[in-house]
Order: sequence, then C-alpha cells, then structure tokens
Amino acid sequence: MPFAAPVRDFRFLLDHVVGFKAVTETERFADTDDDTVGAILSEAAKMADEVIAPLQRNGDLNGAVLENGVVRTSPGFKDGYDAIANGGWVGISGNPEYGGMGLPFTLAASVNDMLSGACLALGLNPLLTQGQIEALEAHASDAMKDLYLPKLNSGEWTGTMNLTEPQAGSDVGAVATKAVANDDGTYAITGQKIYISWGDHDVAGNVCHLVLARLPDGKPGTKGISLFMVPKFIPDDDGNPGKANDLRVVSLEHKMGLHGSPTCVMSYEGATGWIVGEEHAGMAAMFTMMNNARLLVGIQGVGVAEGAYQHALAYALERKQGRSPIENGQGTIVDFADVRRMLIQMKAETYAARAIALACSVAIDMSHATGEDEWEARAAFLTPIAKSYGTDTGIKVSELGVQVHGGMGYVEETGAAQYSRDVRVTSIYEGTNGIQAMDLVARKMMDGGDMAFRLLDEIETDAEACRGTFGDMADAVFGAAETLREATEWLLEQELQDRFAGAVPYQAAFARVLGAHFHLRSAVAEGGEGPRTELARFYIERVLPEHDSLLKAAQAGAEGLYGLSVEALAS
Amino acid sequence: MPFAAPVRDFRFLLDHVVGFKAVTETERFADTDDDTVGAILSEAAKMADEVIAPLQRNGDLNGAVLENGVVRTSPGFKDGYDAIANGGWVGISGNPEYGGMGLPFTLAASVNDMLSGACLALGLNPLLTQGQIEALEAHASDAMKDLYLPKLNSGEWTGTMNLTEPQAGSDVGAVATKAVANDDGTYAITGQKIYISWGDHDVAGNVCHLVLARLPDGKPGTKGISLFMVPKFIPDDDGNPGKANDLRVVSLEHKMGLHGSPTCVMSYEGATGWIVGEEHAGMAAMFTMMNNARLLVGIQGVGVAEGAYQHALAYALERKQGRSPIENGQGTIVDFADVRRMLIQMKAETYAARAIALACSVAIDMSHATGEDEWEARAAFLTPIAKSYGTDTGIKVSELGVQVHGGMGYVEETGAAQYSRDVRVTSIYEGTNGIQAMDLVARKMMDGGDMAFRLLDEIETDAEACRGTFGDMADAVFGAAETLREATEWLLEQELQDRFAGAVPYQAAFARVLGAHFHLRSAVAEGGEGPRTELARFYIERVLPEHDSLLKAAQAGAEGLYGLSVEALAS
Repeated sequence: MPFAAPVRDFRFLLDHVVGFKAVTETERFADTDDDTVGAILSEAAKMADEVIAPLQRNGDLNGAVLENGVVRTSPGFKDGYDAIANGGWVGISGNPEYGGMGLPFTLAASVNDMLSGACLALGLNPLLTQGQIEALEAHASDAMKDLYLPKLNSGEWTGTMNLTEPQAGSDVGAVATKAVANDDGTYAITGQKIYISWGDHDVAGNVCHLVLARLPDGKPGTKGISLFMVPKFIPDDDGNPGKANDLRVVSLEHKMGLHGSPTCVMSYEGATGWIVGEEHAGMAAMFTMMNNARLLVGIQGVGVAEGAYQHALAYALERKQGRSPIENGQGTIVDFADVRRMLIQMKAETYAARAIALACSVAIDMSHATGEDEWEARAAFLTPIAKSYGTDTGIKVSELGVQVHGGMGYVEETGAAQYSRDVRVTSIYEGTNGIQAMDLVARKMMDGGDMAFRLLDEIETDAEACRGTFGDMADAVFGAAETLREATEWLLEQELQDRFAGAVPYQAAFARVLGAHFHLRSAVAEGGEGPRTELARFYIERVLPEHDSLLKAAQAGAEGLYGLSVEALAS
Repeated sequence: MPFAAPVRDFRFLLDHVVGFKAVTETERFADTDDDTVGAILSEAAKMADEVIAPLQRNGDLNGAVLENGVVRTSPGFKDGYDAIANGGWVGISGNPEYGGMGLPFTLAASVNDMLSGACLALGLNPLLTQGQIEALEAHASDAMKDLYLPKLNSGEWTGTMNLTEPQAGSDVGAVATKAVANDDGTYAITGQKIYISWGDHDVAGNVCHLVLARLPDGKPGTKGISLFMVPKFIPDDDGNPGKANDLRVVSLEHKMGLHGSPTCVMSYEGATGWIVGEEHAGMAAMFTMMNNARLLVGIQGVGVAEGAYQHALAYALERKQGRSPIENGQGTIVDFADVRRMLIQMKAETYAARAIALACSVAIDMSHATGEDEWEARAAFLTPIAKSYGTDTGIKVSELGVQVHGGMGYVEETGAAQYSRDVRVTSIYEGTNGIQAMDLVARKMMDGGDMAFRLLDEIETDAEACRGTFGDMADAVFGAAETLREATEWLLEQELQDRFAGAVPYQAAFARVLGAHFHLRSAVAEGGEGPRTELARFYIERVLPEHDSLLKAAQAGAEGLYGLSVEALAS
C-alpha cells in the first residue's frame, strides 16, 4: 500500500475542528473558497503520493554526496524538486506581488505535512525556502525583494538558514562569523557555519544563504548580530546567477537518517553579502524565519507519523501470523489486540498532533489577516507545543511502526526503520524540544498566563457544551483542563529555574489536553457516532490520562535535580 | 570519558537490594563468597572497559560482511572475543563438570550487562552460547554433553538458536523445516531459517546451531517440533571440527543497527543433525534456552542504557553553551535544568531496570539451588517484566542520550545515535515486548494471580516498614502497589482478549512499581541520605506516577480496539 496523503482528514480538520473557516472569511483570504481548498489539497496530495513518495527509499539508500566541492543529490530528487517548484508549491503562501500564490499559511502547512509524509528529506528543501521568503517579505529592502522573491517563490532558487556555529549551537548570541562593510554597500562575510540543511545541491539554479554575522562594532550577544543575504552565485545585472561567491561546502555530516538532505558545513571566506534589515538587528529577522519554521518542523513530525502509520498498517493487513484471535477478522496480525492498540495509538496521536499544528497555523493566518495581537499571541503560544508534540509524535509513532513490523522493522529493506531514523532530528533542529519548553514557560508566559488560561477556558467551554452527549469523554477533558490550569497557576508563581525543571513535561501535558480537546471536537462534529468518535474515545481514555503524571513531574521543581551532585551523577 | 562498567552499582544492588545474599548461602553456591563476587565484577569490568568498549564504533562502521559464503566479522572482534573466551566468561555459570565456572546466573547476568554496555554487537555472541549451554545441560544426552559443553563453556565453539522462518515469526508452531531420520541415528535437516544472530563468523572454531524442525510424523503446531544440534563442521572422532555440514549462509540482513552482529539467513540442505531430547519435544528444550535468553535480552537493554547514559553525561560535562543558569556550576550544559532532568531520568531508570533484572536472576539462582516452585514461579513472573522494561529503558535512555547531545546526537561520529540504533532490536527479538506482555497476563497469571499478589505484598510490607523515615516516598510506593493490586484483580476477572488489550501498559506499570520498590530499598540501605536516596526520590516523584495512566490504559478493554473497523483505520 503506497503512501496516500490523508486529504479527508485535512478537510475535516479545516472545516470542523481548527476554525479555518474564519480565515477564509477575512478580506485578505477572501479568494480562498471551498473549491480552492479542495483543489489545493487534492493536487498536492496527488503530487505527494505519485511523484514524491517513490523517492523516499532512494534518498536513504543513495544519500547526497559531496563531489569536487559540490553536492550531488539522490537519484530522482531533481525531478521531484521540479514537480514541487513547477506546481507552485514553494510559493504557496508567498505574496502574489512577487509571484507567490498568496494562499493561507494553513494550506502551506498542510502541503508540507503531505510532503514530509511522502519524503522528509526532499520536503525539507521547500520548507526552508518558505521561511526565507517570509523573512525577506518582512525585512528586506524593496530591491532585494524584487530580485530574490520571484526566484524563491517559483523555486528557481532555494533558501537556507545559517545560524549555528561549532561553538554556538542553541546559544545564537555567541555567533563569531564576521561581516565587514565593503565600499559598495555590500559586506564581506567570513566564518564557518554548521548544520546547514540543503546548504548546497544540484536541484535548483542558486542557493541563497541567510547568514547571521557580527559587524566590527556589533556588541557581544544577540544584539550585535546582523543578517546577510549571501547567494552561492552572485546575481548579474539581469538577475541571473553570475560569478561564484567566495563560499564553499567543507563537508557533509554523516547522519542517523535524512540522508537525502545534504547537511553542510559551510565556509564563508570573504563572501559578498547584502544586509537584510538594519545593522545589529539580525535576530528579529531570523526570528521571523525561525518561528514559522518551528511550526513547520512540528508539521514534519506529523507528516512522518502519517507515513509511518500507513506503512505499519499496510504491513499489519498483509502479515499472516498464527491463528486470528477474533471471528471474521482479517487473518493477519491486525487482528491481534496489541497490534491494534499500537495502530490506533499511532492514528490517534497523529490526528491530535495535526490538529494542534493546524490550529496554530490558523492563528498565524488570522494574525496576518487581522493584525490582532490576540491571534499573534495565540500563534506564539501554540508554536512550541505544536513543534514539540508534532516531533515527539513523529518519533513515537515511527517507533511504534517499527514495533508493529516485528523483526522486519529492524531490517532496513521494509522502510519502517527509515521513518524512525529520519524523523529523529526533528525534536532537535530549529531549537530542541527542551528549548521550546523553556520558551513556553518563560517568554510565552510573560503575559501572566493569559493565553494559557484563554485556551483552557475554550477547552472547558467546549467540554461543558457537549457534556449531554459525551458525558465521560467531556468530563475527562474538562477535568484534565482543570488540572492543567492548577499546574499553570503553580508554574506562574515559581522562579524560572523551577519552571524550567518541569518545562518539558508541562509542554507535553498541554499538548495532550489540547489533543483531547480537538478529538472531542471531531467527535462532536461527527455527531457522536463513527470512526472519529471511536478515535477520540481511544485518545481520551488511553492517552489523555498521561497528562496527570506529566503534570506531577512538571511541578516537582528544580531542587531534586541539583540535589544529586555532578560527582554522584558520574559515579 | 570512556565506558566504565558500574561495579559499585552492581555490588550495592547485590548486597543490599535484590537479595543475592540468599544465593550465596545455598549449598550449591556456597563457594561464591564476597571475594569471589568482588573479583568477578572487577575483572569483568576491566575487560569490558579496556578491551571490549573500544570495539563498539568499529562494529558499527565496519559491520560483518558475507564473503564467498563465509562471514568476516568487524576489525578487532576476534581479539575481543578471545578475551571473553579466554577469561572464562562464556562458561561463567556453566556446570563445572563440563568446564564451566559454576557461578550463579546472577553474576553471568551482571557480566552480560557490562558487555552489552561496552559493545552490544559482540556481547550478543557469548549470550547466545550461554543459552545453548543451558539447553544442553537440561536436555542433551550424556554423549552430546561430553562432546559439546566443554567446547561451548571454553568459547572454543559458539552456539546459535534457529527458531524463526519467513512464514513463522512469533508463531513458532508454524515451523516448516524438515527433519528425516538417517540410518545411523542422525537426522537430515532441510529448510530455511531467518534472523540467526551470529549464524556464522570467524571468531571461533565451530558454530553449533540448535535448530527447530519437524519430523515426518510430527503433528502440526508446537507439539510436533523437535530440536536438533546441527554443527557447521561435523566433529570428527577426536571431537575436532571435521567436514563441513550441508548448510550455508544465504545472506546477511541489512539492519538499523547492531552491524557488528551478523544476522544470517541460514539454509539447511540435508544437513546432519543430532536430536536434543525426545522426538516432538523440541519446544520444551527451546523454552529452557529462550527463558533465560529473554531475561538476558532485558539485561542487554540495561547495559546499553548504561553506556548511553555515561556517553551523554560525558558530553554534558564537556559541552559549553551560553551562560550557566546556576552559581558554582560546571559551566557546561549539565548545569541546565532540563539537561539535568534528562540525565537523572536516564540514571534512575537504568538503575531500576537493572534491579528488576538482577532480582529475576536471583530468583533463577534460588530456583536452581533450592528446587522450590516458589522461586521458579517468581523467576517466570519477573522474566517478561525484566525483558520488556530493560529493553524499553535501553531504547528510552539511548533516545534521551541523543537528545542531550542536541545536533551532535544526530551526527553519527559522536556515537550517541549508535546506542539508539543498536538497542532498538531488543524490544523485538526473543519475543517482542507485546508477546512478553501477553505471556505475563495469561500464562504467568494461571496461578490466579498468586505471584503478582505475593510481590505486591512484599512491596507494601517494605513500604510500611520504612514509613517512619521515608513518609512521602513510602506512601507513594504503597499507594502505587494498591492501585496495581486493583488493576491485577480487574485483569484476572476478564476474558483473555480484554487482558491482551491492556497487557503492554499493565506490564509497564508493574515495572514502574517494582522499580520504585527497589529504589526505595536502596534509599533505606543508604540510611536515607545520599545519592541513592536522591535518585530514589526522583524516580518515585517523577517516574512512578506514570503507573497510574498506564493502569487506566491497562483496564480499558478490547472493545475500544475493535470498534474502529479496518476500513476506518485505512481511511
């Protein structure tokens, strides 16, 4: 059974669960009618299923290689990339003034979900370009927009993010790459960057690097960092790729998975760069790029979870083993209770994670369309949850997928292990899930918990409203929201260290409560009978209860973490 | 920081937590005095640290290969194997009459734990031989014992288990390999076996395959299966490897990890075999071999968890990143609350899983030494828990180890990812953890729950006894045991399908309660102050609470699993 992007789930979630209708009712997205949504989803699905998914194994078996200083990508990736670019999928939510399709980010998110499920390594490429498009739209000069955005929206060129340096991983303020002003308004960029995804390749005509660097008068820390556009080939007067810039790929990382995505060590050796935004204000622009990229990484997790689920289900429907324990079963391992338990958990968590990610996407669209702070705050609050739960779910679901396969899961030829290896990076890159959690309990709670409580109010109101039909399920969701509310109140009273000590379990608990909330909405929308209701029941009965032990750990404080000395840890 | 087997933890657990003293007080193990235990642990640790651990990366980078029909193992593996064999470590618990050291199985388990932490791929080899030694001791004829056991105990030859066939994974009763009696008392064995770990290699002089096959008059199912010894080289009259048998390695599996361990597809083509035990009684012998192998696989998980923990701690102590959030910290990422949380969880779960595995080992020794059914039943009950929790812990801890490393965890050169890839198979082989759980809630509860309740009584008695000093911790353990008791009672009243539906979470909950129990014992033995007490507090406050949601899932029943149709799963 080949990959089939779950168009019906997207449609149901958009129409009934995550409030996408409000987006299409704004002036900005008034053109996004039902037919458009349907066409986008089905066309993207067709491409993901038929063109992209077949490349998945190739990307693993024949990963990108560095040859004579340039990267050669996996067989078929160029064709796959062309399909994405020619379909207009890179610029799906880009500004139409510069060649974008101008559609809601929520649809871009849905398409990225599909591409990630089909082939994560290739799907990462347009995702990065989309982040760059957004940063340039918000911060670049008109001249730079005119030159770069049409090429990026069309996919003729691709974009990268250059943050990390060997000595500065999560600590972006430690960036040591130097920028020195040239006489002509450009800058000379010198330094080394690591973990540059798709830092070089042969699928498009130019690679546009957005590079964080420090000017000579830049203060230490994040406030002294500026952002530069450093293209692989310097555009000539007609905007075509001209002479090679002074940069090179030093090496490719040998990774646990995602072999089809070239992860480059980049060296900038007096390379010519153009500043994006003001001097010393690079972090703001980078954050624009990173915020949505974080959400999109969460969506990568969801997409891989979908792929791993479908793959495991197909195996479970085929694999005969012993006598079926049920009457009128399939005669394959899908009949066994524990295999079924694993499969339903995979499906239920994937669905919950997707709902959270799409709800966050809707908040982004509403924020863009209305300019209201409320929506911006909502998107900001949901982003770390969507990123962490999406990627944790990708990891857990693909892990369960291996387990469903039994011995065949450990053998690479089935492809189950690849999902698990590929998705493993998503809880690390774009800020580890631990960093997301610190962001959630610190910066995202600087409003005194307002956004958290507003979300909890909504969850409780919804649960109240359907208590008549969904007694036990509604009670469980309501009760969980109350427990989460108490934990949130506790957290707000603590010093930062105590918050940080429980940040990851708190974040995970919030995701489960939100997941249950969206499942309950699905059940309500379905009228309380049918497969979505069954799935909701599973999630609320067997997954949601995890919030309780997570919230105990969330409130355990920092003392117990430092009571054990480093010497004791090492002995 | 290179690998250092945790000798002090073993010693503390044996002396104060898992009741090993009782073993040394039996007549059978009267020679195992304190000095012997100390010497065994420190000598084995020395070998694991200095000789075996350095082979770990090699086994991954230069895995076993099949060349001209024979397997060539990783560079250095032959020397490593020789160190194991020459040290007498293969035959550590073998009968001294046949060249074994005659020591308690608990010490063999400890040594396997160390070897697995040092290099899982190589450590798997003697583990398999040990299983074969046990099966032959219990079921082989005197002639076969005389011929094979000395060579196996000395490590001159190695042993394998041949159960699985392409169409018969977990369903051993479906075995199709044929055995036909020859005129001379031997049998001709014909068929294909898959997943044969160390099915061929160049580290020892002969490979002794124990093969399940069916005689022409063998009934369908497990009752018609017999067990045969099928050596790679047929021993000549002097017991030396003589002419090659009619068997061959068809291919090696390309696996997610454990590349240093050759996983063979074996073809038997009228190979000469000798029966082990009676005709059609092969399953009994195979179970002898499998039962302890299951526990030892759990111990593999514990060992890898130890290796991954030490590896991550070393990184966290070295890696500088941003400003330390605490005063007088290390100035490295170990100072961050969330990194610390991950590290302590790794250590606490590894410790708990090791305690459970060693408690199970002690029960095996007591069963051998006293012949009492009680001990045998205890070992039988604890085996699936030790296997599943040990391997789940290995997977979770090595996963956390990758996360502690951040981006460097995804890059293979640090070795963090290898632990994660290598250990992944342990929750699958020797019976998936799902199958362990089915065994636990069905066969291991055919006593009406007696053994479960006896263990719960002990846990509660212990908790009661230390309530004065350990108020909250003792209460938490007592309360968890009560919740588990109720769930056990519920389970016993259900049909098998409903038990199976919750078997995995039930098994996981039991492990957490046992883990907390042993942690509490450690704290008591330490007098209530010190690092073991801190570790116990962490486990009881932040890990034990998971038992609650697990037990909710354990009691959710089968109905919710089959309410969702196969069509709904696939749409």
